[in-house]
Amino acid sequence: MRIERTRWNPAQNALEESLFHTANGYLGVRACPEEGAPAGVPSIRGAYINAFYDIKPIRYGEKLYGFPETQQGIVNLTDVQNVRLYLEDEAFEPLKTGDVLAVRRTLDMERGIVTRFIHWRSPGGREVEVTVRRMASLAQRELFIMQYTVKAVNFAGRVRLVSREEGEVTNFADPDDPRVAGEALQHLRVEEVRPLPAGGLIRSRTIASGLDLAVAVGYTPPASFTLGVQAQPTALEAVMEGSLWQGQSLTMVKHCVFADSRRHGDPAGAALRILAEASARPVLHYESLQKEMLAAFWRRSRVVVGGDDALQSSLDFSLYSLYCSVGRDNVSSMAAKGLSGEGYEGHFFWDTEIYVFPFFLLTDPALARGLLDYRHTILPAAREHARLMGHERGALYPWRTISGSECSGYFPSGSAQYHLSGDVAHAFLQYYYATGDLAYMAERGGEVLVETARLFLDAGHWHEGTFRIGAVTGPDEYSCVVDNNFYTNAGAQETMRGAAMMTRRLWEAGLAGQLIAATGVTQEELAAFEQAADAMYLPYDEKLGIHAQDDGFLKLATLDLAAIPRENFPLLLHYHPLWLYRHQVCKQADTVLAHFLYEDLADEGIMRRSYDYYERCTTHDSSLSTCVFAIMAARLGDMGKAVDYFRQSATMDLDDAHGNTKDGIHTANMGGTWLAITAGFGGLRVKPDGLHLHPRLPDAWRAYSFPLTWRGSELRVHVSPKGWRIVLAEGEAVDVHVNGQCLRVAAGQCAQGQLEH
Amino acid sequence: MRIERTRWNPAQNALEESLFHTANGYLGVRACPEEGAPAGVPSIRGAYINAFYDIKPIRYGEKLYGFPETQQGIVNLTDVQNVRLYLEDEAFEPLKTGDVLAVRRTLDMERGIVTRFIHWRSPGGREVEVTVRRMASLAQRELFIMQYTVKAVNFAGRVRLVSREEGEVTNFADPDDPRVAGEALQHLRVEEVRPLPAGGLIRSRTIASGLDLAVAVGYTPPASFTLGVQAQPTALEAVMEGSLWQGQSLTMVKHCVFADSRRHGDPAGAALRILAEASARPVLHYESLQKEMLAAFWRRSRVVVGGDDALQSSLDFSLYSLYCSVGRDNVSSMAAKGLSGEGYEGHFFWDTEIYVFPFFLLTDPALARGLLDYRHTILPAAREHARLMGHERGALYPWRTISGSECSGYFPSGSAQYHLSGDVAHAFLQYYYATGDLAYMAERGGEVLVETARLFLDAGHWHEGTFRIGAVTGPDEYSCVVDNNFYTNAGAQETMRGAAMMTRRLWEAGLAGQLIAATGVTQEELAAFEQAADAMYLPYDEKLGIHAQDDGFLKLATLDLAAIPRENFPLLLHYHPLWLYRHQVCKQADTVLAHFLYEDLADEGIMRRSYDYYERCTTHDSSLSTCVFAIMAARLGDMGKAVDYFRQSATMDLDDAHGNTKDGIHTANMGGTWLAITAGFGGLRVKPDGLHLHPRLPDAWRAYSFPLTWRGSELRVHVSPKGWRIVLAEGEAVDVHVNGQCLRVAAGQCAQGQLEH
Repeated sequence: MRIERTRWNPAQNALEESLFHTANGYLGVRACPEEGAPAGVPSIRGAYINAFYDIKPIRYGEKLYGFPETQQGIVNLTDVQNVRLYLEDEAFEPLKTGDVLAVRRTLDMERGIVTRFIHWRSPGGREVEVTVRRMASLAQRELFIMQYTVKAVNFAGRVRLVSREEGEVTNFADPDDPRVAGEALQHLRVEEVRPLPAGGLIRSRTIASGLDLAVAVGYTPPASFTLGVQAQPTALEAVMEGSLWQGQSLTMVKHCVFADSRRHGDPAGAALRILAEASARPVLHYESLQKEMLAAFWRRSRVVVGGDDALQSSLDFSLYSLYCSVGRDNVSSMAAKGLSGEGYEGHFFWDTEIYVFPFFLLTDPALARGLLDYRHTILPAAREHARLMGHERGALYPWRTISGSECSGYFPSGSAQYHLSGDVAHAFLQYYYATGDLAYMAERGGEVLVETARLFLDAGHWHEGTFRIGAVTGPDEYSCVVDNNFYTNAGAQETMRGAAMMTRRLWEAGLAGQLIAATGVTQEELAAFEQAADAMYLPYDEKLGIHAQDDGFLKLATLDLAAIPRENFPLLLHYHPLWLYRHQVCKQADTVLAHFLYEDLADEGIMRRSYDYYERCTTHDSSLSTCVFAIMAARLGDMGKAVDYFRQSATMDLDDAHGNTKDGIHTANMGGTWLAITAGFGGLRVKPDGLHLHPRLPDAWRAYSFPLTWRGSELRVHVSPKGWRIVLAEGEAVDVHVNGQCLRVAAGQCAQGQLEH
Repeated sequence: MRIERTRWNPAQNALEESLFHTANGYLGVRACPEEGAPAGVPSIRGAYINAFYDIKPIRYGEKLYGFPETQQGIVNLTDVQNVRLYLEDEAFEPLKTGDVLAVRRTLDMERGIVTRFIHWRSPGGREVEVTVRRMASLAQRELFIMQYTVKAVNFAGRVRLVSREEGEVTNFADPDDPRVAGEALQHLRVEEVRPLPAGGLIRSRTIASGLDLAVAVGYTPPASFTLGVQAQPTALEAVMEGSLWQGQSLTMVKHCVFADSRRHGDPAGAALRILAEASARPVLHYESLQKEMLAAFWRRSRVVVGGDDALQSSLDFSLYSLYCSVGRDNVSSMAAKGLSGEGYEGHFFWDTEIYVFPFFLLTDPALARGLLDYRHTILPAAREHARLMGHERGALYPWRTISGSECSGYFPSGSAQYHLSGDVAHAFLQYYYATGDLAYMAERGGEVLVETARLFLDAGHWHEGTFRIGAVTGPDEYSCVVDNNFYTNAGAQETMRGAAMMTRRLWEAGLAGQLIAATGVTQEELAAFEQAADAMYLPYDEKLGIHAQDDGFLKLATLDLAAIPRENFPLLLHYHPLWLYRHQVCKQADTVLAHFLYEDLADEGIMRRSYDYYERCTTHDSSLSTCVFAIMAARLGDMGKAVDYFRQSATMDLDDAHGNTKDGIHTANMGGTWLAITAGFGGLRVKPDGLHLHPRLPDAWRAYSFPLTWRGSELRVHVSPKGWRIVLAEGEAVDVHVNGQCLRVAAGQCAQGQLEH
């Protein structure tokens, strides 16, 4: 289970920095060359802590009421990646000079270790093999370990290693790409550089948000090497010197501990304490823990597709990346790029709830609940946001945020995406259906449901007996600020029904006290929710026999996507938004996604026609699109298309299909890849009455299987031409609905059956 | 004919700076206190040249494709207003210390002179009368003359006058008001300060646009006073000293000449030459010319309303301001605030064509043609803008601009207002109908009509046999980016029909050569224009019996405007745009305006119902609204309402009804005030078959009359309870349609009749 690259392409350096980053949900370090990238080689040198942000002003050409004045952005941390190697008087600069004889980058997904190997001949003829192993510890989230091994292949002599921890860092920016930050800014100010006998400490503070960061570093030089540590105004520099015989190989170990004030009362104290603990243990200790944790992860999560190793690797990479990116505390969630880059500035979007949450819900429910905790934590900010947007009641989750405030600088494809509040409610309901965890609903979930339901009740209005929601943007950002977006209205309907259902259930169970104290919800309000939900207007076109994406969409100008030159995609980088808004063109699945999430709203025929219609309009310029089309193609039995779309999703980052993986991996798509298998081919749905499956097998595949965690039990679903088979791997017996029939999967028994079409 | 203020209210200082500014269409100088405004007294010290701009970056929270990167903004010029007066050792600081015994500001609209008079007693007991007369010469546009008279009322002694011309100036900014610039910036850099024996020259250059400004100043000190001129790094300072007897009055004259490189090849040379000429003549020479020109202006333009002096003053003020604000060369037009302030940054909007142009068309057609010339001059930029917005053909006039590039930083209520191109076409057609000037159409007008028609043909699309235009914003900015805005579609229809008609007419007259060379227009294209125009979709609601503002408007949530607290108006400063977009609420007349401009599209009943419906939705938060409601109320015979709305329009700036006249007067509303009388009460329309009138008289009025210039002749229309009467004041006989009947008004005859209702 590894991803490997054995060719060196300078143009792909920044891309590989993303792909081979190391992360553990708290900390992420991009795989930048330790010796620095020479001029002309793209590189985004970065390390990040999930949800550790600074605040910067948002400037507007024209600022209207309610536009956010500031924006949070993930902060590029103190740079601990610098190691310079000197062979006598020659600097190890393989990207710049000399001859690279071999190169190999490896991500070992069973060990959780990234290795960079280079066999290099210097201009002076010295051959050296350098191997750098990096690990962000899953067991100790603050800990990043770098092992730097030098082997003198054909020479003997003095070797010098210079390790530098630089506190003066800036974030990456591209003023012409709306998907990354527009202005490079320094966000960290170094407050103290403290040298220690075998390491040091750099304390910094973010400039506007006033958050503290402490980075403690400990060096273990190669045996027999001298070590000198020097503090500079904004950096630490350690020089290690010694000799190598010909053929000898020596290793320098660097422990780096990152502690921030969002999680630690005394970041410096915590960093030094954790460093002391970690340094006292052999690296092997953490490597063993890492391996154990990953073994458990793979057991709970690994999807296996028979007969296509490359596809299998892509799948593994997706799930591994999800596991390494997800926040594990209530101040963080899953950033759009995980912890692998600065794209979308470390913000949390709906990606989490709709694309990523289901994977955790069904493989590691505790992590899933953590994601819900985050939304509950920022509920006060969402309430405040709703007031700013003119709503007297309810909570409107911001389109993009870190600590809860709206960070969107362009509301038509930002704050206008009211569906996010429905997406959050959907995740809470899915959690409840999957776990039956009524206590959690009593404590947190009910409150989120009631507040989001209130938002929709306030945002909508009655018109001729129907309940409508005007001026919102659905998932498809090529149609902004529309009336009655089908997806949004469907989500609002589920939210209002769900809030009423959940509140009544808590009432009945005598568990509604906390919810009532927090929200003051009344029976009358529940009735209003239900009345609006029942009357929800869901635009439908009689002639086409499909749901309209919104009130106006089907009357817009049509567009022949095939007639647009390939180089003009993604369209958002080549056409003014008004031109896009004027055409029947979709950036991504919208109504098609609604048919997946809210499948009871439409019959098979509508779904089929809808799929066909919107597929013709959709550019998949968003990375969130192909996985949804894969799911729905499978749902509708079009297995050829399903496999094609699935493959596009699965390989998106490894193939850099969107050309921007340099800014980070696409975590939502990775979750979508998992969904394409489980919900698409497997027909998995979580419904009020439990777990549903409807397994299908594409002709192109020999077989596939995936594990599921359901109410504490672990299942494995196998699908092959012989049929489906569900095995209880651990825990109590579980009821599963397969192809509509409820059956019990118990220990020692094998539930199985034929595939339906 | 004067506006006078005889009370000093420090809080209204900035407002009075606007009201009492002096301008001549080229140059405008705000009426700032010569001695400077003390801290706490609002003041926007400024002087401007029409269309003299700098360029500044527009920053975006998220920048999408096609968003303008820079913006033009009118530049605050070298400050020539500073005169400090010292009575022995006491500084004349009436706004700060001592006692103001009398104060009087006067705008004399027959002489074109603004006077500030102050009778002040210094803390030391010296009484002085200071009278400052200012004139922006209508005969010599570069010339601004200031006469500063000092009278020693109760003392004798040394008097010192210090006149300072400051080159280091910045523009005004308010980051929280979208209606003015967001960032204060210095736009002029002084390049040379050259002292001369009795004056000096300051040459400056705008920082980004590289435009040159030369300001030449000549001092004529009071007789017997010494004069010393000193050059400072960015300023000129002249000190004049002498003595006054008790009761003696002496005058200092300052000639200031502003010449810019957009109109002058050698601004410094031109400024010095004009200064030499002007200084050689008595001030009286220019004062006489000014009076003559204004006499001619009033003869051609003055609207007289019997029985309400205050209203008459407001009306005079409106027309006078229009005359002093309108550009008189093809690089300039009429800025939203004229030359009286920095509101809307000196940009040209649709205000010109729809609100201001008709006044000039019917009182001074040469000035009207100049406004069209400006649009023809920027046609290449409008073509470029159309390409950027994704249109393969045609010209899209920018929403706000100075030299032709789009300067809107928020496209939903900016570039999306495609109606502007229809408004421009409308003005060209009105010009043609009023003048029959086919030669002008052959040279310029036809090209603008064909290019704007192409824009609409490209922007629209066919759907089920109708031609539709999606994703535009109409005049009402509380509903943005909508489909099939009635106003826009109606304008597109007229534009396409007009382009076809005009091209055919030129063809038939053998005058189409230049148009064809410039546009390559073909018969097929004309047929396509006509086909689209004939099939134009004009949304209509059967149940309400009115045209819908757009496809979605009538289904939005309704709003009870009376329930919104007064302090929450204008709504745009208190509600997020999405909240506004979600409701049936209008900032200004939209469909109601369409019924005025395109009145043949709807019958009386529709217009009536439409008026009633939209009136309930309209906040008049835009200054462009009440005049339209006045016109349509009169059109529909609701004279009480018409008078109310008319009064609101007429007094808007003098009463500071919108609270922002400090940023400049509302020129569009002033044009609308004229329209309310002529088009509203007078029923004036310019149609293909000529001049139409339908005079009505409100009960509240004794009588009213207005002059019209029509095909070289001057008419005067009188309306009184006895009926209407049209007199030919000068020129050939004219055909006029009154109440639908065509009649000839000839010399010596009086056309007259009864009023209809």
